[in-house]
Amino acid sequence: MKPSSSTSEARRYGLFDGVLARGDVPAAVSDRAWLEAMLEVEAALARALARTGVIRAEEAVAIERACRADEFDIESLGRDAVGSGNPVVPLVRELTNAVEGSAAGQVHRGATSQDVLDTAAMLVARRAGAILCSDLSATADAAAELADTHRATLMAGRTLLQQALPITFGLEAAGWLEGVDAAVGRLADVCRTRLAVQLGGAAGTLASLGSDGPAVLGFLARDLELPEPVLPWHTDRTRLSELAGALGAAAGAVGKPARDVILLAQTEIGEVREGTPNRGGSSTLPHKRNPIAAVSALACAEQAPGLVAILFGAMVHEHQRAAGSWHAEWRPFTDLWRAVGSSAAWLRDCLEHLEVRTATMRQNLDLTGGLLLAERVATALAPALGRLPAHELVERASRDAVATSRPLGEVVAEMPEASKHLDVAELKRLLDPAGYLGSAEAFIDRALEAHVTRGAHR
Amino acid sequence: MKPSSSTSEARRYGLFDGVLARGDVPAAVSDRAWLEAMLEVEAALARALARTGVIRAEEAVAIERACRADEFDIESLGRDAVGSGNPVVPLVRELTNAVEGSAAGQVHRGATSQDVLDTAAMLVARRAGAILCSDLSATADAAAELADTHRATLMAGRTLLQQALPITFGLEAAGWLEGVDAAVGRLADVCRTRLAVQLGGAAGTLASLGSDGPAVLGFLARDLELPEPVLPWHTDRTRLSELAGALGAAAGAVGKPARDVILLAQTEIGEVREGTPNRGGSSTLPHKRNPIAAVSALACAEQAPGLVAILFGAMVHEHQRAAGSWHAEWRPFTDLWRAVGSSAAWLRDCLEHLEVRTATMRQNLDLTGGLLLAERVATALAPALGRLPAHELVERASRDAVATSRPLGEVVAEMPEASKHLDVAELKRLLDPAGYLGSAEAFIDRALEAHVTRGAHR
Amino acid sequence: MKPSSSTSEARRYGLFDGVLARGDVPAAVSDRAWLEAMLEVEAALARALARTGVIRAEEAVAIERACRADEFDIESLGRDAVGSGNPVVPLVRELTNAVEGSAAGQVHRGATSQDVLDTAAMLVARRAGAILCSDLSATADAAAELADTHRATLMAGRTLLQQALPITFGLEAAGWLEGVDAAVGRLADVCRTRLAVQLGGAAGTLASLGSDGPAVLGFLARDLELPEPVLPWHTDRTRLSELAGALGAAAGAVGKPARDVILLAQTEIGEVREGTPNRGGSSTLPHKRNPIAAVSALACAEQAPGLVAILFGAMVHEHQRAAGSWHAEWRPFTDLWRAVGSSAAWLRDCLEHLEVRTATMRQNLDLTGGLLLAERVATALAPALGRLPAHELVERASRDAVATSRPLGEVVAEMPEASKHLDVAELKRLLDPAGYLGSAEAFIDRALEAHVTRGAHR
Amino acid sequence: MKPSSSTSEARRYGLFDGVLARGDVPAAVSDRAWLEAMLEVEAALARALARTGVIRAEEAVAIERACRADEFDIESLGRDAVGSGNPVVPLVRELTNAVEGSAAGQVHRGATSQDVLDTAAMLVARRAGAILCSDLSATADAAAELADTHRATLMAGRTLLQQALPITFGLEAAGWLEGVDAAVGRLADVCRTRLAVQLGGAAGTLASLGSDGPAVLGFLARDLELPEPVLPWHTDRTRLSELAGALGAAAGAVGKPARDVILLAQTEIGEVREGTPNRGGSSTLPHKRNPIAAVSALACAEQAPGLVAILFGAMVHEHQRAAGSWHAEWRPFTDLWRAVGSSAAWLRDCLEHLEVRTATMRQNLDLTGGLLLAERVATALAPALGRLPAHELVERASRDAVATSRPLGEVVAEMPEASKHLDVAELKRLLDPAGYLGSAEAFIDRALEAHVTRGAHR
Repeated sequence: MKPSSSTSEARRYGLFDGVLARGDVPAAVSDRAWLEAMLEVEAALARALARTGVIRAEEAVAIERACRADEFDIESLGRDAVGSGNPVVPLVRELTNAVEGSAAGQVHRGATSQDVLDTAAMLVARRAGAILCSDLSATADAAAELADTHRATLMAGRTLLQQALPITFGLEAAGWLEGVDAAVGRLADVCRTRLAVQLGGAAGTLASLGSDGPAVLGFLARDLELPEPVLPWHTDRTRLSELAGALGAAAGAVGKPARDVILLAQTEIGEVREGTPNRGGSSTLPHKRNPIAAVSALACAEQAPGLVAILFGAMVHEHQRAAGSWHAEWRPFTDLWRAVGSSAAWLRDCLEHLEVRTATMRQNLDLTGGLLLAERVATALAPALGRLPAHELVERASRDAVATSRPLGEVVAEMPEASKHLDVAELKRLLDPAGYLGSAEAFIDRALEAHVTRGAHR
Repeated sequence: MKPSSSTSEARRYGLFDGVLARGDVPAAVSDRAWLEAMLEVEAALARALARTGVIRAEEAVAIERACRADEFDIESLGRDAVGSGNPVVPLVRELTNAVEGSAAGQVHRGATSQDVLDTAAMLVARRAGAILCSDLSATADAAAELADTHRATLMAGRTLLQQALPITFGLEAAGWLEGVDAAVGRLADVCRTRLAVQLGGAAGTLASLGSDGPAVLGFLARDLELPEPVLPWHTDRTRLSELAGALGAAAGAVGKPARDVILLAQTEIGEVREGTPNRGGSSTLPHKRNPIAAVSALACAEQAPGLVAILFGAMVHEHQRAAGSWHAEWRPFTDLWRAVGSSAAWLRDCLEHLEVRTATMRQNLDLTGGLLLAERVATALAPALGRLPAHELVERASRDAVATSRPLGEVVAEMPEASKHLDVAELKRLLDPAGYLGSAEAFIDRALEAHVTRGAHR
Repeated sequence: MKPSSSTSEARRYGLFDGVLARGDVPAAVSDRAWLEAMLEVEAALARALARTGVIRAEEAVAIERACRADEFDIESLGRDAVGSGNPVVPLVRELTNAVEGSAAGQVHRGATSQDVLDTAAMLVARRAGAILCSDLSATADAAAELADTHRATLMAGRTLLQQALPITFGLEAAGWLEGVDAAVGRLADVCRTRLAVQLGGAAGTLASLGSDGPAVLGFLARDLELPEPVLPWHTDRTRLSELAGALGAAAGAVGKPARDVILLAQTEIGEVREGTPNRGGSSTLPHKRNPIAAVSALACAEQAPGLVAILFGAMVHEHQRAAGSWHAEWRPFTDLWRAVGSSAAWLRDCLEHLEVRTATMRQNLDLTGGLLLAERVATALAPALGRLPAHELVERASRDAVATSRPLGEVVAEMPEASKHLDVAELKRLLDPAGYLGSAEAFIDRALEAHVTRGAHR
Repeated sequence: MKPSSSTSEARRYGLFDGVLARGDVPAAVSDRAWLEAMLEVEAALARALARTGVIRAEEAVAIERACRADEFDIESLGRDAVGSGNPVVPLVRELTNAVEGSAAGQVHRGATSQDVLDTAAMLVARRAGAILCSDLSATADAAAELADTHRATLMAGRTLLQQALPITFGLEAAGWLEGVDAAVGRLADVCRTRLAVQLGGAAGTLASLGSDGPAVLGFLARDLELPEPVLPWHTDRTRLSELAGALGAAAGAVGKPARDVILLAQTEIGEVREGTPNRGGSSTLPHKRNPIAAVSALACAEQAPGLVAILFGAMVHEHQRAAGSWHAEWRPFTDLWRAVGSSAAWLRDCLEHLEVRTATMRQNLDLTGGLLLAERVATALAPALGRLPAHELVERASRDAVATSRPLGEVVAEMPEASKHLDVAELKRLLDPAGYLGSAEAFIDRALEAHVTRGAHR
C-alpha cells in the first residue's frame, strides 16, 4: 500500500475532464472522495458495533485507526476489484491486513459490500450536494443582482427567436433566478430528506448481528449523521432516482440561461459578453469573445438527461441484490454529479461576470421601428374606430412600414383616420416600449422577494 | 365489429394501447381530457378577467357557457392546428365563433397559447396524479398486506439471483412497500407543491393587461385552485421536470416488484402465481400461468426512462418561448403519464391477486441442504475452534456436502471436531432457517408502521 | 364540428398529433397500417402453408379472403387485447370466426403472436422507410439546389455563434446536404438489408410444422418479398436497433439544418425566412415570420434520442420470449417513425420554400468592418515584417478598429509599417471576403457530385 | 513536460473502472490513446502540408519528431485546457514549444482544434473498433461452439420465463450467435465505411490554405489511411451517430446472452455455471457460484442506451461550430466505447468458459411431467377424435396431471378415449421431447454456416 496522492487529481485533470470540469464537485465525487467515504463507513460501523456491544471498544479504535485514505492505493484497489465484483472486497481485505490483533476479525462485521458502497454514496452525495447547492445559490444570487440592476433595462422579448414584445433584461434574469432557485430548493430537499444510511448484511436481514441489527443501524446512522431508514434500501433505488431527478432538473435550469447568454452574445446581437478577462478571446479576432463559460455550462448540462436515464433504467434491482443494475449505477452516478456540478460552476462564473450591453439592447429593440408596439396602438384606437377596424388600420400601417422601411409611428401619423384620434405626443407615448412592460417590474420584485425568503429558509 | 364512436375512447383502445393501457390514468391524459382542461382554463380566465374588471361579468358568463368540450371536435382541432404551431390557436378560433355578442372579442384576452396549454397541463397532471397516487397507494396497501401475512413465511434470499441467506417473503414484500410508498410520497408532494397556473401573455409581461396582470393571475390561480407562481414560468421547465422525475421514480419502484414476481413465477421456482382467473392461462398448457400483469407492468415501466430523458432534454427553452423544445414536450409528457399510470395499475392488479405458494418457497429454500446456514454453523464453532479453523472446517463440510449431494447437517455431524462441540439438537437448531432471520420481522414492523403513518399524513 | 369517422384518421389528427405530424409516415405507422400489415402476414402465411402442402390451397384462399382490414374494428381489437398480452390474440380469434369451413382451423397455423407482430413491423418499416427516404431525398435535393444557387453568396461563418470567417451560404447548405444524404443512405441500407420475415412458432423451433418449418419460412419470405433470416429472430433485436439507430441519426441530420434556419431567421440576423405563405405570420406583427416548419422539424427531432434509448434499452429479451421488453417496443417504435418522419417532412417543406436574403447576409458579414479578414492581412504582411511582428501589428490595428468603431482597412492604411508593404488596392483585395473562401466552392462541387452519384445508386 | 507514464493506467484502474473495465478497449480509448492519436494527426498534417508544398520537408520532419506522447503530461494538458475550451489548444502550444526552428511556426498550420480532435476520434474509433470486433467475433465463435456441441442437448424453451416447448441449448446458443454476429457485422461496416479524416480550418473552408485545401486533405487522408470525406464534417455528426448506434446495438446483442446466462445459472435452475476458477465463488457458500462475468457484461451493457442518447441528442451542431454540443460528445463517446468494449470482453470470458449442465437441463425439462408435449398429443389424436374433442381431452388430462402431480403420459394412458388410438409406445414417442424439436437442428446448421461465411468475408 503506497500512497497515491496524485491519482485523484490525475483523474480530475484528465485530458477532457480539465476542459469541462469546474468548481469543487468533481473533486467531491473523485475516486479519492469515494475511498474516504468508504473508510468513513467502515470506521463508523466499528464504532456502532462497539456501542452495541458486538465488538469491544478497543477493537473499534484499532479499526478506526486503520481507516486512513492515505494508506490505500486507489489504482491497486481498482485492479484487485476485478473478479470480486466491487471495490469493497479488496478494500476490506487490505483494511483487515492493516488492522492489528483481534480487531482484524471484526472489520466490516455484519455488513455486505453494498452496505458500504451505498452508504458511501450517500456521504459523497451529501458533500457534493452541499457544494452544488452553494454554487447554484451563488448563481441565483448573480441572477438576482442582474434582475435588480436591470429592472428597467429595455430589451426585445423573443418568442421562437423572433422579436415579439418589449421586456426588460431584469425580467429575463428573474426567469433564470426562478429556475435556478427551484433547482437548488429541490436538490437541498432531497439531500436533507432522502439520504440515509444503508446496512442490511448479505440479504437485508442483518442475520449475523442476531437481534442487534436495528441498534447497530441506529448507532451507525447517528454516527454518520445520516437519517436511519425504515428498512435496508439496497434494492429500493428511489433515493438514488430522486437524486438523479434533482440533478437532471438542475442541469435544465442551468442550461436555459446558458443558452440565452450564448444567443444574446451572438456577434449580430451583442447584448451581453462574458466578462472574464483572458478567456474566450482570440488574438487575431478581437471582435470575437467566445462565451466559453456559457458554452461549457451547456455542454455539461446536455450530458445530464442520458445519464439520468441510465440511473432510472437501472432501478429494477432483482430480489436481494441486482444482477447488473447495481454495478451499472456507479459511473453514471458519479458522472452525473460531475457534469451537473461543473455546469453550475460554469454558469455561476458566467453570470457573476456578465457584461450587459444596455445600449445594444435598446438598439436591437428599435430595429423594427416600433412594430413591437403595433398591438398597443391598435388597442388605443379601438374605442374610437371599433376593435376590428382599428386592428386593420394598424396592420396596414405595419405592412407599409415594413415595405418602406420607415418607423411605424411615421406611417401612422400620416394616416388621417389615425391621427384624428391620436396626436403626435400620444402616438409617441404609445410607441415607447418603456410604457408597455405590463407587470415586468412587479414580477421582478416578486422574484427577488421570493429569492430572499427562500435563502432565509435554507 | 361496429365502428368507433368516441375519439378519445378510440385513442384509449388503439391497437397497442389496449394491450398495455390500464387503470384510469390513460383516460385522464387523453385528448378529451386535454380539451376539457384547456376549456376550463379559458373559462376561468374569463371569470378572473371579470373579477378584475377587465371584462364585464356578462361577457365572462357568455364565454364560460361556450366552454363545453362536447361542442368541439378533437380531430378537426388537430387538423386545423397544422400551420399554427399549437392546438390552442384553432381552439380559440372556434371558441370565439361559438361565443355570442361582444364577449367574443374577450375570449383568451391577455393570454398566449402557451398560457392555456401549460395551465391545462397542470390540471391534467393534478387529475392524473391523484389517480396515480391512489393506484400506487393501493399497490402499497397490497404489498403491506403481503408483508404482514407472510412475516414468517420462509424463503430463500437471493443475491445476483443466487440463493444467499434465508429471508421471509414478508420482508421481500416490505421492500416493495417501501419503494412504492416513497414513489407515491414524492409524486403527491410534487403535485401538491409544484403545480401552478401559468399566465404571462406573449412575452411573460402580461403587457396587454396593463397593471392588472398580477390581479388576474391571482384570481385565475384561486379559481382553478392551483398555486400562484412567483413569475410566469413559460420558459422555466423545472415544474415539468420534477413531475417527470417523480414519474420516472414511480416507474422504477413499480418495475422492481414486477420483475421479482416474474422471477418468482418461473416454472422452476413457482413461488408465486398471478391469481387473476382467465388471464395468462393457456388451454393446452395448464401448467403455464403467464404473469401477464407483472409483465405488462414491467413493459410499461421500461418506457419511462427514455420519456423522462426527452423531457429533461427539452428543458432549455430559449428566451420568452422555445423554438422547438416546448412543442417537443407534449407527446412524451402525455405518454409518460400513460405508461407510468398503466404500470402502477398493472402492479396493483398483480399484487392484489397474488397467489403465494409458501410450501414451494420452503422447498426451494431447502434445495441446498442447509448450505445457506453454513456461515451460522461456523460462527457457532468459532469460540471453541477459533474463528479461522471453524470456518475452514465448515468450508470443507460444505464442499463435501455439495460433492456428495448430502445435507450439510449430516456431513457436519459426522465430523468429530464439530460434533464434539455441537450436539445433534444444537446443530439442528443452527440449521433451522427460521432462526437465522436477523431483524427481518423487526424491519417488517417498521415498514408497516411507516406505511400507516404516511397514509395518515396524506 | 362533425364527429370523426375513421379511427386511423382520428389518431392521425389527435389534438397534438395534428400540430407536429406531417408527411405520409404518420399514416404509414398508424393503427390501420399495423392492422393491414398483420392481416397481410396471416394471408401470406396461409399461402406459404398451402405451397408447402401443410394446408390445402382452398383453405389458403378462404383465409386470404377474410384478411380484409375493413372488416375489423381497431378499437374492439385493442379492447379485447387486454388480458391476452398482445393484439394478435384477438385478431386471430376474429379472423378465425370470419373464415368459413375447415380453413378456420388453419388460421395462424404454426405461428405465434410474435411472429405476426414482428413480421408486420417489418412491413410497416418497409413502407414508412420508403416514404421517409423519399422525403429525406427531396430534402437533400432542396439543400443541393440551395448549395448550387448560393455557391457564391457570401455570409459570415459562425463558430460558437460568433462570426469567425467568411463562407458562402452554398457551403452551409452543402453541409446540410451531406448530413441528410448520409442519413438517407443509412436508412435505405437498413431497410434493404436488415428487414426480414419472422416465423418461429411458440419457441422458435417451428415444432408444430414438423420438418416443414424452413420451407414455410422460405415461401413466406418470398411471398412478402422480405429477406429470409438465418434463424427466427424473435429474441435477437439487432434488426430493430439498427432501424432505431438509423432513425435517430436521421433526426440529428434533420435537426441540424432546422436549428441553423431558426438561427438565421432571427429578427436581428434575418438572413433567411420561411417562404410558405399564410404560415408563421402574425397579423399584428408583420415583421414577425415564425420559422414554423424549422421549429416543428426540430421539435420532432428532439423526441428521437429518448425513443431510441427506449428501444436500445429493450433489446435484452429473455430466452424464447421477453418478459416485458417485447411489449415495451411497440409504442416507441411507432412513435419514433412518426417523429422522425414528420421531422423530415417539415424540413423538406422548410428548405423547398426557403427565402434566402443575400443582401442581409452581406450586411451582417460587413458588420465587423473587416475583422474577419484580419488573419489574412497578417499573413500577407508576414514575409515583410516577420510572422510575429505582423501578427502583433494587425492585432493592434484590430483592437484600435474595435475601440474606434472604424473599419480595419482604414486603421491599417494609416499605419506606416503596414502601408509601406501594402498599397491601398492590395489591402482592399485582402479585405474582400470573396477572396478568402478557400476551398468553399470546390467542396460544394464535391458535395453536389456525391449527391448525384448517391442518387444514381439508390 | 515531464513524462506521466502511469496516468493512463491510473485511469484504467480507477476505483470503479477496475471492477467493470475489461479487455483492451478501455486502454484504446484512454487519455493516453487520445493523446497519441492527436499527435499522430499533427504529424500527419505536417507531412501532408509538406507533400503539397505548403511547408518544407524539413519542417515536417521537425514537427513529426516532436510528436511523441511520452513528452507530454496529460494532467497538465488537462489543467491548461481550462479556459481555452478544448485540449488541443494547450497541446498545440506545448508542441510548438517543443519544435525547433522555423518549423515551430508551421505546427497545426491550416487546422482548427476540432480538426485534430475529430480526426483523432476516428483513429481512436478505428483501434477500439478493431479490438471490439475481435472480442465480439471470439464471443460469436464461443457461441457457435456451444451451438454445435449442444445441438442435441434438450432443454426447456421459455417464454415470459415460463416453460413452453422443448428446444435445445444449441438453438439458444445459435440465437446468441446470430445477435452477436449481426452486431460485429454492423460495427465492422461502420468502421470500414464511415470513419473519415476531418480537416476544414476555422470555418470549414480551409481558407488559410488558399487553393491547396483539397490536396492537403487528400494527402492527410492517405497518410492516416482514413477515407477522405466529400466535405469537412465538423458539424455533420452522422458519422459519430452511426458509431454510437452500432455500439448501442452491440450492447444489446451482448446483454441478451448475459441475462440468459444469469437466469440459467439461478440456484433453482442450475443449467449453466460460469467456469472461470477463483471467481464468483464464496468460501462459506460453496453452492454459490455468482455469474460475475455475465453480471458484469450486463452491467456494462445497461449503460449504453443512455450514453447513445446523449450522442444522438448532441447531433444538432450550430453553423460552423456547435455552442456546446461538440464539447458534450467527448466523455460519452469515450465512455460508450469503454462500456461496450468491456461488456463484450466480459461476455467472451463468460461464454468461453461456460459450464453447461446437461443433466440439469433435462431434469428441468421433465419437471412438468410431459405437459410441454400436450399440444403434440392433441394433434396426434385429432385425426381420430376431431380437432376440438382431441384438444379438450388433452386439456382435461393436463389439468388432471397437474392436480394429481402425475406425468401426463400416465393420465392419458388411463383415458380409454385416448388409449384406444394411442398405444403405449406411440404415447411414449409423442411425449419424448427429442421428437418435438421442429427445425431446431436445421436452424443451428444455418446459423453455423452463416457464421462461417461471415467470418470468411470479414
